[in-house]
Amino acid sequence: MSSFVQCAPISRVVVFGGTHGNEMSGVTLAKHWLKDPSEIQRPTFTAESCIANPLAVEKCVRYLDQDLNRSFSHEVLSCPGSEGDPYEIRRAQEINRQYRPFDFAFDLHNTTSNMGATLLRCSKDDLFSLHLANYLQSSSGDQSMPCYNFLIDIPEKDNAYLQNITKHALCLELGPQPQGVNRSDMLFRMRELINQALDFINLFNEGKEFPSFETDIYRFVSRVDFPRDSAGEISAVIHPELQDKDYIPLKPGDPIFKTLSGKDVLYEGEKILYPTFINEAAYYEKKVAFILTEKVNWKVPALKVEQ
Amino acid sequence: MSSFVQCAPISRVVVFGGTHGNEMSGVTLAKHWLKDPSEIQRPTFTAESCIANPLAVEKCVRYLDQDLNRSFSHEVLSCPGSEGDPYEIRRAQEINRQYRPFDFAFDLHNTTSNMGATLLRCSKDDLFSLHLANYLQSSSGDQSMPCYNFLIDIPEKDNAYLQNITKHALCLELGPQPQGVNRSDMLFRMRELINQALDFINLFNEGKEFPSFETDIYRFVSRVDFPRDSAGEISAVIHPELQDKDYIPLKPGDPIFKTLSGKDVLYEGEKILYPTFINEAAYYEKKVAFILTEKVNWKVPALKVEQ
Repeated sequence: MSSFVQCAPISRVVVFGGTHGNEMSGVTLAKHWLKDPSEIQRPTFTAESCIANPLAVEKCVRYLDQDLNRSFSHEVLSCPGSEGDPYEIRRAQEINRQYRPFDFAFDLHNTTSNMGATLLRCSKDDLFSLHLANYLQSSSGDQSMPCYNFLIDIPEKDNAYLQNITKHALCLELGPQPQGVNRSDMLFRMRELINQALDFINLFNEGKEFPSFETDIYRFVSRVDFPRDSAGEISAVIHPELQDKDYIPLKPGDPIFKTLSGKDVLYEGEKILYPTFINEAAYYEKKVAFILTEKVNWKVPALKVEQ
Repeated sequence: MSSFVQCAPISRVVVFGGTHGNEMSGVTLAKHWLKDPSEIQRPTFTAESCIANPLAVEKCVRYLDQDLNRSFSHEVLSCPGSEGDPYEIRRAQEINRQYRPFDFAFDLHNTTSNMGATLLRCSKDDLFSLHLANYLQSSSGDQSMPCYNFLIDIPEKDNAYLQNITKHALCLELGPQPQGVNRSDMLFRMRELINQALDFINLFNEGKEFPSFETDIYRFVSRVDFPRDSAGEISAVIHPELQDKDYIPLKPGDPIFKTLSGKDVLYEGEKILYPTFINEAAYYEKKVAFILTEKVNWKVPALKVEQ
């Protein structure tokens, strides 16, 4: 006898673009679907799109006052809010009021890192979105941008992502794409993935059962900062042998940085880990040169809709 | 009997980084050479480096009030200036006062376009810098980033580049590199080129004669904007067949844009031209999707120092 994960049917989906105003694939798709939402409709649920940070989109910057995708804390969302709050705090509260409750959030991002189509999840318990990720990995499509499962299940107090306000969520991180640039390969790959994901949700709602499977997950371990001089200034760059090597095993002793005097800085960890978000532009200010993940294999039980 | 171009010896060189505050190769090199200028010294001239737009560097943005590299107009430079002027106007006047007169300016830039190591010149009459460019093209080094000669000799009234304040100048545009990201390949290629360029100036000052040569130059023809809808919003992206094809011949009928409804927009020009600055992030606000150039072959007379 097989065991199933059962989830309630999905009735309302929101596709967020422009959570960061200079990540152009999601900005462009969300704008397009606001004008003409027909492409994202399916028979068994409603879907709408939303520009999450309209002022940042207008100025083509990541954010105005603070990172919107670090503004959905439980503290912020439980506050009434006031006029004097930072713009993104007010915007997080607005989004929360406008959409909650809803069943599924797509959050569309780009990265300057060579991360292909990264399927980023913040909750290890959301097995519905893991089934969705598996469906995307198994679907045909542009395989020059393969899908990677990335899980960043940091402690609740540090988690202030947009994913917090919904039951199920998936964040797409497509790259490499510079901030403020719209590349056709990224745009059309993201569009393809969202369409496949909406197909999955529709099949699920219609009663299709999805069998159990095994999958590799890159799970957050730690953040690594750049080397810095005594004044706190960055004193090295990502090593040429690490640049663009997202999800490639990093072995103890491998070079990770190169200083301007030509010295290699080596990885001093004790086990093989998998770097990602290597040289992401937006993470310089967060003091993150790259993120280390461990590769874990999970067995995921079968899925069907709750009757 | 051969004819020579004769130029006065070069006695003062300034290397500008951070003319745009988020183009990281030049920012990093200029900061490094401010701390330790020994690498850019040569026996026959003085060299110093300068962060052209320090506030933009601090904030990691292109500019604060207006593009510094469009602020060196004759009108601005002949004005006394006042406290209420935009920051970059004041900065252009400061740079002009601080360094003028000097003999050679390097202006270090990055682009999100696939332009390799573009050697950008604004004056067709500056044959000294064209000899320098030829020297760089003939030198060994990282050939994964080849050198291209780009000439943008637009009418004087539209030319407000930093190059205006010096006798000879060369702007390096290395790419593709996202804004706000420091890639080691770009950084070390730029450093190699500047060192080779300083060697050339030193050889010239020492009396070495440089023979005449023929060279291909990509000369500015026109700017091409994105297709736009009735509200003025961009309605297409650079076509996948044009993306990353800087300096590759564009033939009449070739696709240049793709709309979100999947329609190809074709190049309707009558002759083969050479696109460059394709999908440069900073040019979206300037309404430039790419720049068209014509490829011309020039015969450049020999060069020697004026005795």
